[in-house]
Amino acid sequence: MDVATKPDSVGVVRTLSYEIEQERLPFRLALGGEIKNVTIAYETYGKLSAARDNVILIVHALSGDAHVAGYHTAHDKRPGWWDFVVGPKKAIDTDRYFVVCSNILGGCSGSTGPSSLNPDTGKPYGILFPMITVKDMVFAQRLLLEHLGVERVLSVIGGSMGGMQALLWGIYFHDFVQSIVPCATTGRLSPQNIAFDEVGRFAIMADPNWRGGDYYSHKPPARGLATARMIGHITYLSKASMLEKFGRQPSIQMGKSWFEPSFSVEDYLHHQGTTFVERFDANSYLYITKAMDIFDFFKEWEEAPQHDWSKGPKVLIPAFSSDWLFPPEDSKALVKAFKRRGADISFIEVSSDYGHDAFLLEKSQLSPIIRDFLRYVQEED
Amino acid sequence: MDVATKPDSVGVVRTLSYEIEQERLPFRLALGGEIKNVTIAYETYGKLSAARDNVILIVHALSGDAHVAGYHTAHDKRPGWWDFVVGPKKAIDTDRYFVVCSNILGGCSGSTGPSSLNPDTGKPYGILFPMITVKDMVFAQRLLLEHLGVERVLSVIGGSMGGMQALLWGIYFHDFVQSIVPCATTGRLSPQNIAFDEVGRFAIMADPNWRGGDYYSHKPPARGLATARMIGHITYLSKASMLEKFGRQPSIQMGKSWFEPSFSVEDYLHHQGTTFVERFDANSYLYITKAMDIFDFFKEWEEAPQHDWSKGPKVLIPAFSSDWLFPPEDSKALVKAFKRRGADISFIEVSSDYGHDAFLLEKSQLSPIIRDFLRYVQEED
Repeated sequence: MDVATKPDSVGVVRTLSYEIEQERLPFRLALGGEIKNVTIAYETYGKLSAARDNVILIVHALSGDAHVAGYHTAHDKRPGWWDFVVGPKKAIDTDRYFVVCSNILGGCSGSTGPSSLNPDTGKPYGILFPMITVKDMVFAQRLLLEHLGVERVLSVIGGSMGGMQALLWGIYFHDFVQSIVPCATTGRLSPQNIAFDEVGRFAIMADPNWRGGDYYSHKPPARGLATARMIGHITYLSKASMLEKFGRQPSIQMGKSWFEPSFSVEDYLHHQGTTFVERFDANSYLYITKAMDIFDFFKEWEEAPQHDWSKGPKVLIPAFSSDWLFPPEDSKALVKAFKRRGADISFIEVSSDYGHDAFLLEKSQLSPIIRDFLRYVQEED
Repeated sequence: MDVATKPDSVGVVRTLSYEIEQERLPFRLALGGEIKNVTIAYETYGKLSAARDNVILIVHALSGDAHVAGYHTAHDKRPGWWDFVVGPKKAIDTDRYFVVCSNILGGCSGSTGPSSLNPDTGKPYGILFPMITVKDMVFAQRLLLEHLGVERVLSVIGGSMGGMQALLWGIYFHDFVQSIVPCATTGRLSPQNIAFDEVGRFAIMADPNWRGGDYYSHKPPARGLATARMIGHITYLSKASMLEKFGRQPSIQMGKSWFEPSFSVEDYLHHQGTTFVERFDANSYLYITKAMDIFDFFKEWEEAPQHDWSKGPKVLIPAFSSDWLFPPEDSKALVKAFKRRGADISFIEVSSDYGHDAFLLEKSQLSPIIRDFLRYVQEED
């Protein structure tokens, strides 16, 4: 099938690169470090209106990238990671909106991160890459939007760590954004969240192939990274969705050996672990999970310049009933904080068995919520 | 402090060994394998009464051992793993009861398991050890009790995988046991439970030091086993108890490096991982977790010889409100099955924030429950 014939798709798209201009460098980081050269990979769909008032910034989660919608080739089998919500006539309607998404700073899908060349050594940074924060990701996106001629953003929308970025857009670029949609997210990680992240990092660093982060001219720490990803996936699904999806069905490998998977759920985890290492850098995993662990929106909000929230941006917070990674209670804590500051805040708890992954799966429930909110933001404008 | 002076302690105790008699060997396993020589490590406290009617069998969880109560030396700092409930005047009163606990078959604390010598090779079994089941653990315990001259057991009591053993005692040795107390347990693991186990096994087998299980003359796969244990500990605590215990308190190592723990909860996990590898065998971890994964009480019950449960054994099932590994719903499914068969079944959901670990921690709540139930079993006898 040629994807160009799909009427609701943005079609074949390309990831572009923005090199931050020399006069804006070095890129100074929240924790004190700096990066000499910064590339930001991004995609855009739709057209920037003459009034430049139709921009939607989509911000991605831990393992996401700039490729939100459409296909990279005419015969690409898989569309971008949030294709169901972005495209002509979809909730984030590319006939109406100019949609931008960039790979985060610290990532490994085109933006500068630990696997990028360190100009000081001529080799990949590895753990010489400075520690980055969610705030740094947001400030890099801000430069990209300026580069694209964007003067105002209708909405910043993202799930999970994308939601954390959306929250920070609201406090650091308060007058630049008309609304934010922090989805399936949290103001700060619980110790249980941190514990899961740390076991993943421990597994990566325990892999002898990690070599203190300096593995780029060798085999990568694939087994450690696969372990981390498998742990992650358990937390992305709900107990109920696992029961529904796998039950206690035997593995397709069953019978070969007790040291291979016995149950279908194990096949799934192995698949997730194996495919992840083909597309993700282990050091990026370390940096990004640590950035999530140390993220504390409530603390940053107190320390940031204060604004009158009654005049905007508008806030929509969707949470998912079975999300036990960042449960609805975490979203409610955010709602409370926004209410206290007089924000125009909407909260919706979507009933779903999909767990944390619901923000990537609940097409029919999530689409009208986002569509209606964007119309509301535009109408009220 | 000399522990001999503690009035509520069984004092200094010793782990003993029972070698299953030649005429009872080889020990045939439920899945078809067999073991030529079998040693079972055990401890006993109290005295077997003349009528031989005061026996309590305690059965341990994944990482437990025969050392339930008391101390191994006069200046031992830590008592056995369930000391709060076993001792003179305690709930399982060693002035009244003859208490037996054995290290499970497949374990690594004195009983035959993958780290034992394989008589066929003169080397430790490694993964040549045959696959064992919870049923095999129970049948080995049965031989031990016979060896000790026990003809009837007042109660089989255990938490987590100990509870699984208690359940099987009820169906395979129905007339031998007057009661069972399967505590904080489940009739079968959920796919989420299996997933956590599999990631732990994956981490062990991914450790190059695992060497296909043949590591006994080399360094053990310590980092893989530590990873597995860290994952386990996340599932043993509740989200609430982690919040209470650690919050987002910084690590004592904070500031050294972003690749060391940043939060207190990470110190805890590292400590649990590191200390575990000093006392536990990685191959035993593989075998025992697999035995738990494939355990299916409901299936075994259907396939086992059927009995009239209205005449006993009596059943007490304690569950803990915040246990998300084997939640109260799992216990309720057991209760329903026992009720359907006319058993004298008591269920209690203990309100606790301790998560799955509650059965090892809820001293003041658990003690009277067990004490009263044992009295009831004896009175009714």
